[in-house]
Amino acid sequence: MKPAQLSPTELREKIRAGAWRRPTAGCCRDFAQANLVVVPRALAHEFLLFCQRNPEPCPLLEVTDAGDPEPKILAPGADLRTDLPKYRVYKSGALEREVPDILSIWDDDLVGFLLGCSFTFEWALQEAAVPIRHIEEGVNVPMYVTGRDCRPVGRFAGPLVVSMRPIPSDLVSRAVEVTARFPLAHGEPVHIGDPAALGIPDLSQPDFGDAVSIRPDDTPVFWACGVTPQAVAMRAKPELMITHAPGHMLITDRRHEELSDISDRLRGR
Amino acid sequence: MKPAQLSPTELREKIRAGAWRRPTAGCCRDFAQANLVVVPRALAHEFLLFCQRNPEPCPLLEVTDAGDPEPKILAPGADLRTDLPKYRVYKSGALEREVPDILSIWDDDLVGFLLGCSFTFEWALQEAAVPIRHIEEGVNVPMYVTGRDCRPVGRFAGPLVVSMRPIPSDLVSRAVEVTARFPLAHGEPVHIGDPAALGIPDLSQPDFGDAVSIRPDDTPVFWACGVTPQAVAMRAKPELMITHAPGHMLITDRRHEELSDISDRLRGR
Repeated sequence: MKPAQLSPTELREKIRAGAWRRPTAGCCRDFAQANLVVVPRALAHEFLLFCQRNPEPCPLLEVTDAGDPEPKILAPGADLRTDLPKYRVYKSGALEREVPDILSIWDDDLVGFLLGCSFTFEWALQEAAVPIRHIEEGVNVPMYVTGRDCRPVGRFAGPLVVSMRPIPSDLVSRAVEVTARFPLAHGEPVHIGDPAALGIPDLSQPDFGDAVSIRPDDTPVFWACGVTPQAVAMRAKPELMITHAPGHMLITDRRHEELSDISDRLRGR
Repeated sequence: MKPAQLSPTELREKIRAGAWRRPTAGCCRDFAQANLVVVPRALAHEFLLFCQRNPEPCPLLEVTDAGDPEPKILAPGADLRTDLPKYRVYKSGALEREVPDILSIWDDDLVGFLLGCSFTFEWALQEAAVPIRHIEEGVNVPMYVTGRDCRPVGRFAGPLVVSMRPIPSDLVSRAVEVTARFPLAHGEPVHIGDPAALGIPDLSQPDFGDAVSIRPDDTPVFWACGVTPQAVAMRAKPELMITHAPGHMLITDRRHEELSDISDRLRGR
């Protein structure tokens, strides 16, 4: 079966068995994927509060109890230690290594943060027939460090990182409307138009990802990016931090629509 | 000037000066009011996570840094120790006393939680010409302890409390639509119709507030209620907890509309 048609449980089982080590883009197409950030308990309050104060770059889907590797809300029965294809381990802010599981690192002191991902709003844009340039061009979305600071919390502080998609000008309203429905996947754009207003000097020089072509009738549209919390957490230099490797996400049991503005279905009873 | 027409700063100054000790319902009519829960730092992570997992009863507007009495997002320059008309002080879960300020109790270890309040969605219902029975009848909204449990976090656990408004059946859709726009003020109803489905045996016997009349063409409509987090925090018996006295809220500088689904204006940059 094609990866896009697999159920979340089927793909997570493949990953857990070591039979899938690749990025998860395009997998289980109707289901939301999540970014992972793991920090020790002593930092969890500050990081949680950072996410609460900065919900556009840090849309919190679930926070686990210390030591509990099961994401009970997003994927009951899944295991955060084994069910992502690749992890990154940081020590004091420096990347130490990439590993296929974190069974030997996990302990009772660790708290997992799962954050919404732009795959969900890109799914919604595509459903609404809004073209996505980096997908058309087969590259990674361009991302830029802005001149805007996030609201700081303790040692968690740093600039907002945004992703940019050139949108045909007659579709910009539609792109706003569609993505605004997904506050748990970064929501509506943080900025539309002039990159200089965000402190971005040159769209052809992204800080992460790849440049894409911008056509004469395009408007650059900027969304808060999930790289922000990872960058901020890295700058805080926690003794230990674990994240998913870029593109190697947790596949959740939640359909994209469950991350929309009817999201109490996700969080509630 | 009438209390409804005062600016938030004007009313907070009156309160701070001891010239306003009454409930805040109807004051500063265009501006959102907030529930206050203060707990020691050691409990703040669990309580914050409880709110994150239970956003309908606990819509977080702002969480202060430990020891900082200024609600920088909701009301820059205000002081949580003096700017509410009446406070309740709980020790180990028991109400100890009501006080007009908490200057002598406040210390560097305390964290303030400000939560959205139903005044905001009631404002929106009225703007949309949906009648509100308890306001017509001049009583408090009826509230009920349900048979549904909140998602627990550590020692924070307990049932969902709901408020009920009988809505003429042909206006129920409108009431859902209007309140759904205010996720930071409890959002859309958690239940519509049969109270037994929520474990409520008798609408004429509310657990808090007052019973209201229910007419033949009314449907009972239930919203998550801000009494929930206070009740849950009380059951957790923290050594010290401070809340606003019922109805004596923080008046914020934020207009009701800023608590709507365009709420990144509230939280963002």
